[in-house]
Amino acid sequence: MAKDKKVEQITDMEVDFAQWYTDICRKAELVEYASVKGFTILRPYGYAIWENIQSILDGMFKKTGHVNVAMPVLIPESLLKKEGELVNGFAPEVAWVTMGGSEQLEERLAFRPTSETMFCDHWHSVLHSWRELPMLYNQWCSVIRWEKTTRPFLRSREFWWQEGHTIHETAEEAQAETEQQLNCYADFFENILAIPVVRGRKTEKEKFAGAEATYTVECMMKDRKSLQGATSHYFGDKFSRAYDVTFTGRDNKLQYPFQTSWGSTTRMIGAIIMTHGDNNGLVLPPKIAPVQVIVLPVAQHKEGVLENAAKLRDRLLEAGLRVKMDDSDNSMGWKCAQHEMKGVPLRVECGPRDMEAGQCVLVRRNDGEKITVKMEDLESAVIEQLDIVHNMMFEAAKKNMDDNTYEAATVEEAVALQKEHGGFIKTKWCGDLACEMAMKEQGGMSSRCMPLAQSGTVGKCVCCGKETTTDIYWGVAY
Amino acid sequence: MAKDKKVEQITDMEVDFAQWYTDICRKAELVEYASVKGFTILRPYGYAIWENIQSILDGMFKKTGHVNVAMPVLIPESLLKKEGELVNGFAPEVAWVTMGGSEQLEERLAFRPTSETMFCDHWHSVLHSWRELPMLYNQWCSVIRWEKTTRPFLRSREFWWQEGHTIHETAEEAQAETEQQLNCYADFFENILAIPVVRGRKTEKEKFAGAEATYTVECMMKDRKSLQGATSHYFGDKFSRAYDVTFTGRDNKLQYPFQTSWGSTTRMIGAIIMTHGDNNGLVLPPKIAPVQVIVLPVAQHKEGVLENAAKLRDRLLEAGLRVKMDDSDNSMGWKCAQHEMKGVPLRVECGPRDMEAGQCVLVRRNDGEKITVKMEDLESAVIEQLDIVHNMMFEAAKKNMDDNTYEAATVEEAVALQKEHGGFIKTKWCGDLACEMAMKEQGGMSSRCMPLAQSGTVGKCVCCGKETTTDIYWGVAY
Repeated sequence: MAKDKKVEQITDMEVDFAQWYTDICRKAELVEYASVKGFTILRPYGYAIWENIQSILDGMFKKTGHVNVAMPVLIPESLLKKEGELVNGFAPEVAWVTMGGSEQLEERLAFRPTSETMFCDHWHSVLHSWRELPMLYNQWCSVIRWEKTTRPFLRSREFWWQEGHTIHETAEEAQAETEQQLNCYADFFENILAIPVVRGRKTEKEKFAGAEATYTVECMMKDRKSLQGATSHYFGDKFSRAYDVTFTGRDNKLQYPFQTSWGSTTRMIGAIIMTHGDNNGLVLPPKIAPVQVIVLPVAQHKEGVLENAAKLRDRLLEAGLRVKMDDSDNSMGWKCAQHEMKGVPLRVECGPRDMEAGQCVLVRRNDGEKITVKMEDLESAVIEQLDIVHNMMFEAAKKNMDDNTYEAATVEEAVALQKEHGGFIKTKWCGDLACEMAMKEQGGMSSRCMPLAQSGTVGKCVCCGKETTTDIYWGVAY
Repeated sequence: MAKDKKVEQITDMEVDFAQWYTDICRKAELVEYASVKGFTILRPYGYAIWENIQSILDGMFKKTGHVNVAMPVLIPESLLKKEGELVNGFAPEVAWVTMGGSEQLEERLAFRPTSETMFCDHWHSVLHSWRELPMLYNQWCSVIRWEKTTRPFLRSREFWWQEGHTIHETAEEAQAETEQQLNCYADFFENILAIPVVRGRKTEKEKFAGAEATYTVECMMKDRKSLQGATSHYFGDKFSRAYDVTFTGRDNKLQYPFQTSWGSTTRMIGAIIMTHGDNNGLVLPPKIAPVQVIVLPVAQHKEGVLENAAKLRDRLLEAGLRVKMDDSDNSMGWKCAQHEMKGVPLRVECGPRDMEAGQCVLVRRNDGEKITVKMEDLESAVIEQLDIVHNMMFEAAKKNMDDNTYEAATVEEAVALQKEHGGFIKTKWCGDLACEMAMKEQGGMSSRCMPLAQSGTVGKCVCCGKETTTDIYWGVAY
């Protein structure tokens, strides 16, 4: 008999978005808090999402010639300090190892907050000739940044990420790499995570410590706050000079290579939750869902139902999909709610009456739509529906972003729009830090990016009124 | 024109095995020393081997129902100390984080030397019912153990590994898991790495700190020293009790689950080098070689040679193999030496004369044998030869192990055999620590394992002469 197991409720997002978010993180079993303050545990379901993200991104990196390496996790303080801006940017957040076994260390070691310094140190010792360039490296690891306040996926003391680090013979090549990797992220967000992005460049104030230029993909969450999706940095030869990385050029002279780095993190899972989730829980983009299809036998005690459901599951597995069947003794209502909470994109239901009619029913997670399909068309119908789900999710998120992007001519207008609607506020900006600070002070908004797609029109800076062509996006950011 | 680039030499293994080993690590570009003392960098070629190892092992774990998670890298001292034996075993090797940003931490945090404590802490908070058991978890990460002397892959302060951690309803299930994972490792070593192993149980002295029983796969290197390949531990309910991990059993009473852990590390790459390498460099088992086949065009300046070689490469890629073509302007001699150094299992050569004859030549890395094959049979011939290479490598390693396993009746005999031949010394052992220590003191040998395949015959302890049936292996270990 079906047990009357209670379906766990989550807070409505309209009532308390932050609590809704945390509820999903916990109830969908993505993360759990650890007893180390500010640290989280990626549980199997959360980690499975991360594995799918890793596998696809890693494939994209490798297609463009990148290779993986592993650098030491600890960085001597003296090495970290060779480039002043970087260490100033990260010093307040560094965790320090000061003891090895029972010995006090002569020099304390930083748990990597980012690895530019280690890569430079390595290149200093292995790079010799222009023939060895470019070196296109990446690593998957965790980093620590000692944040004061933390939230699962969005801000935690340890997080998991990939950090790409490359060096090139010329500035042009390094700039092209920076741009290529930005586009790679944009492609990944839109075509894999179904999250639309604005590609742009960060202001001087918001760029990565030590970078010459930082590019970003910016997303908009369902609460209309902004989230920085991933970043790509161009360093020029600044770090090369600081770390004495040189090579013999084609002209037989010693030269400094030009450098990039680019990174994306488990924060992407936070972006997925807040872009696609609803009051029934998580809604996962099909391409990274650990379970793409859940097969639910209806009236499973009836003869042949379970066997038939297993057959459907096996056919879908055979078609290369990630599929599970739930033949537990929980009630049908509980099962549906449970797999909705976990964001499984598609449900396949099949009971005795369906079997008689030679059909089964597909139910889409994102909009609850039911589609009856002939049993023999199952594979093609499921594959088609997963595509449709992806596209619908992307379109819904795009609409949210487009509908909540507002233009403003003055700070007052910008502040009023932000207060009423949230979202992106698009303005002209003169480039001055003072004007950027005014937006922060008066409206709590940070500059998100100067979009790569600039209109080119002349207008007045939102703050000081100076004439400028620069378009910029502002928002309240995670 | 071909340049006369010099082929880098390595020390002969007969002259200085340790130097030969280090030379391969560096010249095959597997690792590089970092400027953090005792830490190494896994370079792209070394990491690519590790990626192949990870991918295959991970698939094996998943096939038996294991899932991956990520636990925090830092462990509060108080948590680490809850189980006395574990902390006593690892305390001298722990790296301690004592500062976060500019603040002194109230409690110092250990960089994980192993994660039993974190898993137990997590299970303490998430486990409720027997229905949730077993929990079959694994994680891929790096750990730190503050070793005094270090060698690439074999012993370094940071190393990369997987650590499986599972809890079960009954002792029997946990014991079966321990055994299953030991067999998984043995299977992986023999059928993937082409390294024969002895499966066995560790003595009380050699077992993992806190474990009730430790099982191991032991290998023999070309210098006839022993290397512990991977281990699998059974904990009983000791950690569950120490960390208060409980569940409601089928009888509705609170119970402690039974626990296992099992691990394998980047040390396996060291085992590959020392099991298969020769005086020309690395020899890689085909199943984990980043490049399985290198295509070398002969007289590549002649018309059509490069195009033909590219076609051969593409055909092999199409067949699902990992293939590269070397059309650099280095000399043929240099190229051969270079790809031999890197251990590429198979070389395909094809020049104008071969093209005329409709053939190409395969050269095996392990024994230098050349096989002429018809162009149209390329794929099947290459796949067949890679299989042959794997089997030949395994057989050669097996012969080395079998030929260097000696039986001894007394400590004196054991010491003499070890001194003359090295290898495994097989004896009877009464089980007493004093006898085990005598072997260490008089012959520098540690007990490697009590093989699972026990003869059952009665004999006399190698040291005290007491009657016993226990067979045991001794060796000088890495």
